[in-house]
Amino acid sequence: MKKSREKMKNNNSVTAIKWQDDHLLLLDQRLLPHQVVWLDISSTEQTVAAISDMVVRGAPAIGITAAYGIVIAAQACFTKAPGSWQAQIRVDLEQLRNARPTAVNLVWAIDRMTDLINRIEGDPVPRLLAEAKAIHEEDIAANRRMGKLGAELILPGKAVLTHCNAGSLATGGYGTALGVIRSAWQQKRIDAVYADETRPWLQGARLTAWELIEDGIPTDLIVEGAASALMASGRIGWVIVGSDRIAANGDVCNKIGTSNLAIIARHYGVKFMVVAPVSTCDASMQSGQDIPIECRDPNEILSLDKQQVAAVGATAWNPVFDITPAALIDAIVTERGVVRRPNAKKMRVNLQGPTDAV
Amino acid sequence: MKKSREKMKNNNSVTAIKWQDDHLLLLDQRLLPHQVVWLDISSTEQTVAAISDMVVRGAPAIGITAAYGIVIAAQACFTKAPGSWQAQIRVDLEQLRNARPTAVNLVWAIDRMTDLINRIEGDPVPRLLAEAKAIHEEDIAANRRMGKLGAELILPGKAVLTHCNAGSLATGGYGTALGVIRSAWQQKRIDAVYADETRPWLQGARLTAWELIEDGIPTDLIVEGAASALMASGRIGWVIVGSDRIAANGDVCNKIGTSNLAIIARHYGVKFMVVAPVSTCDASMQSGQDIPIECRDPNEILSLDKQQVAAVGATAWNPVFDITPAALIDAIVTERGVVRRPNAKKMRVNLQGPTDAV
Repeated sequence: MKKSREKMKNNNSVTAIKWQDDHLLLLDQRLLPHQVVWLDISSTEQTVAAISDMVVRGAPAIGITAAYGIVIAAQACFTKAPGSWQAQIRVDLEQLRNARPTAVNLVWAIDRMTDLINRIEGDPVPRLLAEAKAIHEEDIAANRRMGKLGAELILPGKAVLTHCNAGSLATGGYGTALGVIRSAWQQKRIDAVYADETRPWLQGARLTAWELIEDGIPTDLIVEGAASALMASGRIGWVIVGSDRIAANGDVCNKIGTSNLAIIARHYGVKFMVVAPVSTCDASMQSGQDIPIECRDPNEILSLDKQQVAAVGATAWNPVFDITPAALIDAIVTERGVVRRPNAKKMRVNLQGPTDAV
Repeated sequence: MKKSREKMKNNNSVTAIKWQDDHLLLLDQRLLPHQVVWLDISSTEQTVAAISDMVVRGAPAIGITAAYGIVIAAQACFTKAPGSWQAQIRVDLEQLRNARPTAVNLVWAIDRMTDLINRIEGDPVPRLLAEAKAIHEEDIAANRRMGKLGAELILPGKAVLTHCNAGSLATGGYGTALGVIRSAWQQKRIDAVYADETRPWLQGARLTAWELIEDGIPTDLIVEGAASALMASGRIGWVIVGSDRIAANGDVCNKIGTSNLAIIARHYGVKFMVVAPVSTCDASMQSGQDIPIECRDPNEILSLDKQQVAAVGATAWNPVFDITPAALIDAIVTERGVVRRPNAKKMRVNLQGPTDAV
């Protein structure tokens, strides 16, 4: 299972979100890995569509995209109505807020930008753009910090399993779960990386494998069904995932299939790590039960490449996130530190921790 | 979640294996559900290829196919060398035995036919054909019996979840797990049927949904990752699956992903039922660890419809079966009765039970 590390590149060669001149560029993640296409985003409608249709996905990346989307909205509103742009932009903010329901980083970024909007005078664009860039850069810094903290938890000699894509593509860069994996790989703490292909959208096969291989980290895909057999083999030390929203008690909302892995990991004594920035933590949600779970189009399951695969007449239930209870989690890693065996009290302490840790 | 039962047909309208004149007809399960194509099988090479390439799949169906395949082989050998056909056919028997490694019904059927070959005099075809037809008919009868026994375990008011395809298509007819589901649906013991789509081959989406819908039983597909969320909802009373081989101690080998479901079911207090004829039980395997697990081509995961899906350079680990330990199983149903909380002693008693139960 050992693979060569010779091909390793700069360990973070992939990015999915760029600001250029006066607009946003998004790497179209629906077309990866076979086509690398950048879309120009220059209106609120385009930003909302890019988030809803999963041009961009991953909780931190959605938040960063929304922040830049607000800069675009402010440009348009201020040009049209310099005296009342702050009132006009409310509609845009509301549309952005509703683009997808589960990832709280979206709301977090909009709230942070709104706070500035409420205080700004004169041309808002330079200050909003600086804030959006700060959100973007802070996210990368948080990922680097979490990568270091998470890697320290991993005893050398085993492989890791990840789910979905919590990498550069899902964040400002470097990644949350994949940030830890990048860091641990560089430190030779892990022998091999396994990735769930992650149905129905195949983020594992299309995105995680792509960005890890781009960085010279060989990746073995499995179907979700093989997680138990893989863990039974003794090869896996940690399951490492990201999150779309973490409740006050440490319950974790993440890509459908995450809680399967947590239950199976606990059964086999494999450790389970969640890696997510503070912007993913939602203190207003007492537990995971309160978090809204998005159900997407059943055709994501019934069809492949717009071709019907399932039997005609079959229906599908397509929730795209699930809740992993805190009790099944060995460590939640934020940029403020590691919360072992999370609960409400420990999460509160972590979130109140020193920000200079970033 | 309640669906109409009005459309119900004769409750067993699908078949995948037919003997016609002097050869075998197999429904090409690779092309289902959108193309219904029957292949003529009239040589040992064709039988072996049909089993290896998954024209026919499902442990009991593989056994029945091999039995008919031996009739075809005997026809050819006896025509060529009436005096030494019993020696000549050894090569065919060996090729058939090696067509796939995991389903023990293949070996079981070949052993049963070989036993007759060793005793036969004169033209072997009528007696071998009668034996193959008996194997086929006994399998259907066993499925009917298991359907009744398994359905009796189900308290009304909940839904069931199944994995892969353990239905008419996987057997002589009626099905093992799907036989129980057909019987329970007819008796209104279940509210709804959920089926894992079952990557990588999508047996759930393509085959299980197809044959249940053909019989008027509505079927909701989920991705494997949604099993935990579904069971957490409280909707599922039983997970019901088939098997490819059952060890002496009650450990069950079945489609990759089965042991995931057993672990998750136990976590949520959902019951777990395995339905398989006695021909699936292999007393020579002390435990599941002894059962050979087939690994198939990684391209089954990396590609869809021969198009590369995964990132270039990604590899895949593709074991297609896993082992569910007996300790996670609430009931194994054979045609000889129900083994609750199976162990070696209870399995031995069950296998020695009265054959007239069939």
